[in-house]
Amino acid sequence: MSYALMSALFVRTLREDPADAEVPSHKWLVRAGYIRRAAPGIYTWLPLGLRVLAKVEAIVREEVEAIGAQEVRFPALLPREPYEQTNRWTEYGPNLFRLKDRKGADMLLGPTHEEMFTLLVKDLYSSYKDLPLILYQVQTKYRDEARPRAGVLRGREFVMKDSYSFDVDDAGLQAAYEQHRLAYQRILDRLGLEFVIVKAMSGAMGGSRSEEFLALADNGEDTFVRSPGGYAANVEAVSFPVGEPQDFSAIAVPHEIETPGAGTIDTLVEAVNASVPRQDRAWTGADTLKNVVFMRITPEGKKFPLVIGLPGDREVDEKRLEAALAPDEAEPFAEADFAAFPGLIKGYIGPVRLGTAPVAVLGREGESACQYLTDPRVGVGTEWVTGANRPDTHVVHLTMGRDFTSDGVIDVAEVREGDPAPDGSGPLRLARGVEMGHIFQLGRKYADALGLKVLDANGKLVTVTMGSYGLGITRAVAMVAEATCDDKGLAWPRAVAPFDVVIVVAGKDPAMLEAAKQLAADSSVEGIEVVVDDRNVSPGVKFADSELIGFPTSVIVGRGLADGVVEVRDRRSGTSQTVPLEDAVAVIVAAVRD
Amino acid sequence: MSYALMSALFVRTLREDPADAEVPSHKWLVRAGYIRRAAPGIYTWLPLGLRVLAKVEAIVREEVEAIGAQEVRFPALLPREPYEQTNRWTEYGPNLFRLKDRKGADMLLGPTHEEMFTLLVKDLYSSYKDLPLILYQVQTKYRDEARPRAGVLRGREFVMKDSYSFDVDDAGLQAAYEQHRLAYQRILDRLGLEFVIVKAMSGAMGGSRSEEFLALADNGEDTFVRSPGGYAANVEAVSFPVGEPQDFSAIAVPHEIETPGAGTIDTLVEAVNASVPRQDRAWTGADTLKNVVFMRITPEGKKFPLVIGLPGDREVDEKRLEAALAPDEAEPFAEADFAAFPGLIKGYIGPVRLGTAPVAVLGREGESACQYLTDPRVGVGTEWVTGANRPDTHVVHLTMGRDFTSDGVIDVAEVREGDPAPDGSGPLRLARGVEMGHIFQLGRKYADALGLKVLDANGKLVTVTMGSYGLGITRAVAMVAEATCDDKGLAWPRAVAPFDVVIVVAGKDPAMLEAAKQLAADSSVEGIEVVVDDRNVSPGVKFADSELIGFPTSVIVGRGLADGVVEVRDRRSGTSQTVPLEDAVAVIVAAVRD
Repeated sequence: MSYALMSALFVRTLREDPADAEVPSHKWLVRAGYIRRAAPGIYTWLPLGLRVLAKVEAIVREEVEAIGAQEVRFPALLPREPYEQTNRWTEYGPNLFRLKDRKGADMLLGPTHEEMFTLLVKDLYSSYKDLPLILYQVQTKYRDEARPRAGVLRGREFVMKDSYSFDVDDAGLQAAYEQHRLAYQRILDRLGLEFVIVKAMSGAMGGSRSEEFLALADNGEDTFVRSPGGYAANVEAVSFPVGEPQDFSAIAVPHEIETPGAGTIDTLVEAVNASVPRQDRAWTGADTLKNVVFMRITPEGKKFPLVIGLPGDREVDEKRLEAALAPDEAEPFAEADFAAFPGLIKGYIGPVRLGTAPVAVLGREGESACQYLTDPRVGVGTEWVTGANRPDTHVVHLTMGRDFTSDGVIDVAEVREGDPAPDGSGPLRLARGVEMGHIFQLGRKYADALGLKVLDANGKLVTVTMGSYGLGITRAVAMVAEATCDDKGLAWPRAVAPFDVVIVVAGKDPAMLEAAKQLAADSSVEGIEVVVDDRNVSPGVKFADSELIGFPTSVIVGRGLADGVVEVRDRRSGTSQTVPLEDAVAVIVAAVRD
Repeated sequence: MSYALMSALFVRTLREDPADAEVPSHKWLVRAGYIRRAAPGIYTWLPLGLRVLAKVEAIVREEVEAIGAQEVRFPALLPREPYEQTNRWTEYGPNLFRLKDRKGADMLLGPTHEEMFTLLVKDLYSSYKDLPLILYQVQTKYRDEARPRAGVLRGREFVMKDSYSFDVDDAGLQAAYEQHRLAYQRILDRLGLEFVIVKAMSGAMGGSRSEEFLALADNGEDTFVRSPGGYAANVEAVSFPVGEPQDFSAIAVPHEIETPGAGTIDTLVEAVNASVPRQDRAWTGADTLKNVVFMRITPEGKKFPLVIGLPGDREVDEKRLEAALAPDEAEPFAEADFAAFPGLIKGYIGPVRLGTAPVAVLGREGESACQYLTDPRVGVGTEWVTGANRPDTHVVHLTMGRDFTSDGVIDVAEVREGDPAPDGSGPLRLARGVEMGHIFQLGRKYADALGLKVLDANGKLVTVTMGSYGLGITRAVAMVAEATCDDKGLAWPRAVAPFDVVIVVAGKDPAMLEAAKQLAADSSVEGIEVVVDDRNVSPGVKFADSELIGFPTSVIVGRGLADGVVEVRDRRSGTSQTVPLEDAVAVIVAAVRD
């Protein structure tokens, strides 16, 4: 027997939504019996789920092997030392699962394997003749996410394909990167996912250039921007140029004004329009310089105040801030922090005493300096209404480059629909997606840190240049589910469906079961993956389960059998046709191979 | 191109044995480029190794699916709670990798998944109609072995196939167990391993009955015994019946003798033969009762002395002791321990004051009682020469059941070649092997602990009975290598070889490379897995590498090509034949499908 029987298949469909389901794919994958939660962000794959996972894996393997990648498999449990050498043991912070073995040695559960691949190649290869080389693995990875969510879409244990390229020169890296870029496009096309490729931040991975493959999803975690002229970037990676210096000779000297109770941008705008109205137009929030304080924390645990100056009509975008500071983190500046730094007057902070000024001025002696960073829009010669560092007092006409400076630029203001693209390619549109893959030109970061060099054609030692290319496999299962499900359940594309066809026995007549089994056997011979729903439940339950589970094609063997016909239904289009029993195999084969 | 080129394959053969290689398979798998050490007991699988691993996995999957097992995949990272409920969180002791997540929750890396499978079935199934059920996974497992050894033969991260059966009654469990027993035999046969099935200890797993599948290996870690009458057991599981009570009415009353300096069995035998010679024969070590002290430690960390009384001519077998006490452990009784328990006189310990006697007598007030356990040979009515609990003093004619008793029986004396089989089936022979699989009738242990019940045909809740069946996949790779390698390297059976054939280009003439590639392409079409050794190294290096890597068949395209012939060599037999080029594909196909 080369087909499955639903009565024996380890699957139970559930009527209730799981309590923690935030997105449709999570709900349906649990209700249809594909996955089951074992711990927060940690899932068990049931037979149906594992079949889909295997198909996604196979597609990924085919495409990366087509570009010459060779499969290896690293352990998930890794020693600390290599991650120490690249500082990622520290930089990963609480996202890394750390443990000690029985002898007290520090170990970790691998979140990604740059260090190990670098050391492996260093271990075995020594000449430029050995390169180029692409290695990959399909492997279980671990990240102790602060907010695991959406089932297997963002888990703490997940399967990833990670590949790594090794080249002697930049042109080689460029070629390997381009090959991966194309392979990823083919993979996502085969999975039927709509996606965009966007410029991304390299983050803890390091390296010079990286792009993300985002599957479009209204409820996706990642926000990205696109312009009519072709600019595309993850919102974290959007980086505006610093404004050109402007002539400030005509700007009035700054002077303080009393602004009692004007501790917010709205009240401030109201106050200045009342006390020092402009001639040309009213003051707006965009004229004010808002100075937002955070407590910045290094991976080693050092803390100091970070003040960010940006136009008052913009907020700091938390994810852009997180990406800009990584591996440092930022926490909101708490009341207790304000108390400890009495020089920072909440609601009235101004740039004049900030930045390179010693923190002593702000209150706490002996602490690291306060850091003051400004938005790219705060260019030399721009004038601002801003805090005067005294309660109930602001200052007008304060001009960057004349009256104050900052320690540098930080581009973390929210990006808005309609903002001009940084490359001048038109107004930005915002949309959301889910990161399916991320490709990095690492360059020599890891090879330098771990000493991966080879002899070049002239017998000289050169440092190898590397790329790293990740693609989420378990996440891809969830995303395909998410992109294709409807209000009845899952609706898999044929490429990854757990079975091609369900044959529903829609009645108690033994001839129906008999005919269904014969049809299943005949279809199996043609290489079709079939499950026969032979359960002792009503046809209605079977139809509902077929739709919930999302078999691409259902064949109903029911009352029509007496007239020699069966019904063939297509899950995604909802269409159905009545087919003579003797033609059924051909119709099924045609549908599956469509 | 559907064949591989050796020049591009990520493999480097090494000339030096790895420093830590204890067994041939470890040495050859490293030297031939199959595996690479990442940390103690933790290995990376290189392309050649991964190909073998995949073939072993495929054989295992086929055979367990043939008995109806359905594949699932549990996480490796697991919550503590279920293992707490069965007490294995504690019982596993230091063999368990434990860690905390960022929220401080206790987690573990799964060594085996009985708890999780039990909970999954409890979660989804509720009726006897859902059973029988067999689920399995092929998954990475973790055990923090005290002594990881022999490469992947005993690693700390390893791949295992574990299946679990669920039945309503004992007959069902019996059937599932028998099915697995047969499937395991088929798997090991297909892998070409010589093996025995032996009675085994269930250990931390629990349950009523278990058997191990041991591959025969002179350097194997496991010792087992066999008798001519068919008895077969792991040496830890050998259990002798307690001697029948004997009439002791004729035995003389015990009396003490001075034995200065006779603190060992040899000196004691000498002393009693000198001072109280027997009429019938000389005293031997078998007449003495040796009382060996250990410090017994419970998983909770409680410690107390355990004295084991056994015939003086036998030693305590450490592995049998470990198995008998598990999950408790035993440490040697140190000098400091003797100092703390002055009632235990080293070299002169006797059974009279031991056992249920309060420890106060032995020295330390308020401690748990000392435990006294005896070998099955120390039956009621047996008389012994033994310690008198005073320095330089022993006692003769001390008789079990008359002059002393024990707290119970412990069967941990070494088993010797020629000892009678416990079931009377003849003298035991000892041999060694490596555990490939272990099958357990768990019964209701886990279902009871975790509340897995289903409604039976009468609507009554019954506890499910379970079996658990493990088979080491990475270990199987090592064991097949171990069983087939020779002094030139690996010599894979065709069923698991990384490639079927290597085609060696044995010369610089471009026609040779051309012919080799054509032959490879033609063979690939026939489904043969081919690698062409096109490297720019001497034929001698290529021949040596072919043997080291262990391709089952080598085809040499060399000088003979001018005469239209190639050479086909068989790795295992060492035979070779000269074949016309035009017949080569047919000869290769015949050899591979042999």
